[in-house]
Amino acid sequence: MNDLNRKAAENLTAVRKAKPLIHNITNYVVMNYTANALLAMGASPVMAHAPNEVEEMVTLAGTLVINIGTLSDMWVNAMLIAGKKASQRSIPIILDPVGAGATQLRTGAAKQILKETKISVVRGNASEILSLSDRDAMTRGVDAVHSVEDAAEEAKSLAQNLGNTLAITGAEDLVTDGHRVLRVSNGYQLMSRVTGTGCTATAIIGAFLSVDPDPVSAAATALAFFGFAGEVAAESAQAPGSYMIALLDALYTITPEMLQSSAKIAEE
Amino acid sequence: MNDLNRKAAENLTAVRKAKPLIHNITNYVVMNYTANALLAMGASPVMAHAPNEVEEMVTLAGTLVINIGTLSDMWVNAMLIAGKKASQRSIPIILDPVGAGATQLRTGAAKQILKETKISVVRGNASEILSLSDRDAMTRGVDAVHSVEDAAEEAKSLAQNLGNTLAITGAEDLVTDGHRVLRVSNGYQLMSRVTGTGCTATAIIGAFLSVDPDPVSAAATALAFFGFAGEVAAESAQAPGSYMIALLDALYTITPEMLQSSAKIAEE
Amino acid sequence: MNDLNRKAAENLTAVRKAKPLIHNITNYVVMNYTANALLAMGASPVMAHAPNEVEEMVTLAGTLVINIGTLSDMWVNAMLIAGKKASQRSIPIILDPVGAGATQLRTGAAKQILKETKISVVRGNASEILSLSDRDAMTRGVDAVHSVEDAAEEAKSLAQNLGNTLAITGAEDLVTDGHRVLRVSNGYQLMSRVTGTGCTATAIIGAFLSVDPDPVSAAATALAFFGFAGEVAAESAQAPGSYMIALLDALYTITPEMLQSSAKIAEE
Repeated sequence: MNDLNRKAAENLTAVRKAKPLIHNITNYVVMNYTANALLAMGASPVMAHAPNEVEEMVTLAGTLVINIGTLSDMWVNAMLIAGKKASQRSIPIILDPVGAGATQLRTGAAKQILKETKISVVRGNASEILSLSDRDAMTRGVDAVHSVEDAAEEAKSLAQNLGNTLAITGAEDLVTDGHRVLRVSNGYQLMSRVTGTGCTATAIIGAFLSVDPDPVSAAATALAFFGFAGEVAAESAQAPGSYMIALLDALYTITPEMLQSSAKIAEE
Repeated sequence: MNDLNRKAAENLTAVRKAKPLIHNITNYVVMNYTANALLAMGASPVMAHAPNEVEEMVTLAGTLVINIGTLSDMWVNAMLIAGKKASQRSIPIILDPVGAGATQLRTGAAKQILKETKISVVRGNASEILSLSDRDAMTRGVDAVHSVEDAAEEAKSLAQNLGNTLAITGAEDLVTDGHRVLRVSNGYQLMSRVTGTGCTATAIIGAFLSVDPDPVSAAATALAFFGFAGEVAAESAQAPGSYMIALLDALYTITPEMLQSSAKIAEE
Repeated sequence: MNDLNRKAAENLTAVRKAKPLIHNITNYVVMNYTANALLAMGASPVMAHAPNEVEEMVTLAGTLVINIGTLSDMWVNAMLIAGKKASQRSIPIILDPVGAGATQLRTGAAKQILKETKISVVRGNASEILSLSDRDAMTRGVDAVHSVEDAAEEAKSLAQNLGNTLAITGAEDLVTDGHRVLRVSNGYQLMSRVTGTGCTATAIIGAFLSVDPDPVSAAATALAFFGFAGEVAAESAQAPGSYMIALLDALYTITPEMLQSSAKIAEE
């Protein structure tokens, strides 16, 4: 047990107290599951994507979550408008570059959003994150082809170049702002058999960002919380359907005390 | 047990017999859950939103459900086209003004739909409903900031002005056409931790509207049915994931007889 | 037990080994459930619909799944672009003409896609499939009004005319390329009370098409697999909410051996 375990518990407590409005501009596949995850943990999700309402909506929000999982040009436009407004208002933004590296639209959109808005955290798998580098990276669809381990050194320098905190998730998660490197080893393998668990991790980091001004600790503690929820879910479910439901339940039933004693966050 | 309890049972029986096609133009977040809820209770959902097909589709429908939860201009356009056709054909329409009051797009769209189509029932939380008044109302995102109690008097005069039946849901639900006032006290608090339960209430009222020409009794009996399903679900689930599944199950397993003896509808 | 039972087991084994990327351009209602079904069975789903990325995405895919369940003109355009690219690359395509026959947009889009791309399999209910004929067919929304039995003869000649394999699902499923006729009798009635089970059947055929070059056996064995999953799910759930979750679980837990001994496929 260390300071980050205590911080994890504090962040969860703070989210449940503040019930922050989390504005998601996210993909069609995960909208429902993400909203349910945020509600279950104690935050208040809202989904809104119209270019002519996102500025108003984001102004009400504690965090803006941008997820490019099912993109089209109109949505990229809305993401930029919302992101610029959030940047002006110092509302934290988290970007999930789903499938970056797989198509030019996705890689290009992710890079443009990074450039034109003030992103606190980028959460993706290793392939997605490394595709944001100017060095080429290969991605196979939305699946990771790099291990987190391989990506660690490259991520550190990429975080420095981009000026963002990067959260690379996989069997073990890695969070770095280019200086600090944190590893989170909570989690359970069935999480990868539920669609949108990566996107949900992003949204949960979003909720923690609304109460924790340090993007590194917000990301690492949120990933510990979500990974621990995956462990709790495994106690009652061992196939993907019932597991995804048990995962939502765990986000609701886990107490700050449980999280404090079970988070596995290591700082290098 | 009163006439409305018997009416609730009759409406449920009639829906299960007629299997009405319910045409939903609704938001991305709840499309799946709403469709499953309608199917579970015995109705036939269809989702269709293209401006160049909604007229044909709504003509086949028993009710049109309009829900503005994830809006953009093209969708508002489709809602108006479908709504006008439904109005011409005397197909009942229910409007769910999700997030009205939070952004101008939503408040404006809801007011325009109300003005240009013949809406039978508007279902929302107190903030959303009161934002439809020309008197200003404050909304915090899509969450209710008014209690149903505070809203009762204002709702009654608003219903008279608008000429619609209003269904305001919360810990207790209130249904009024400006003259009659019905209160429904079925429900369970975990319903608010599942995304789209408000939208689902709207869709279920939609199903009842297809078999009950009186919007006040259709809305109140549908809310009693859905609230009672929430009570039944609570017998087997106490966290949001498993609860949302148990809620779908209850919509299927509740019999008209169970509903008749458990509906809690009071007329003032 | 026959050759097709062995083929069913082989196809399931091959999908789990290859983890084929299945590119879905599908409807909003079922995106999440379909993605979860593909993940649960062992495939890798990706959803992408932007006209300016579908060519790149489909090139990475084992199969393209086109589902017209919530259509608009932009989506039809993307379907045609992706379908033409897949046709050039000999990537198999399966079409789900959801609601064809109900509106001109849907019937027209389905026919145009059939004409301009090289479709391997069309999967729908009897009404939807028969609406693709130049002979008129009546459809009531997205619900079947023809029985599979009534449709058999007409389907056989339609398959010859179109040059596609047709998979008509219902209480019993029928697969024909105009010459061979296979019937699949796995399944369970509660499947029709879960939204998107038809669409999920389509996606699962898509996964099998990526490993089986014969569209007739790919479709029949996939339907046997999904129908058998429906039977397995019924052992643990008897209402639609818990049933839809148990169905996902079954797609994960069913082994090739179980499938080989339980598939019910008959060739005429």
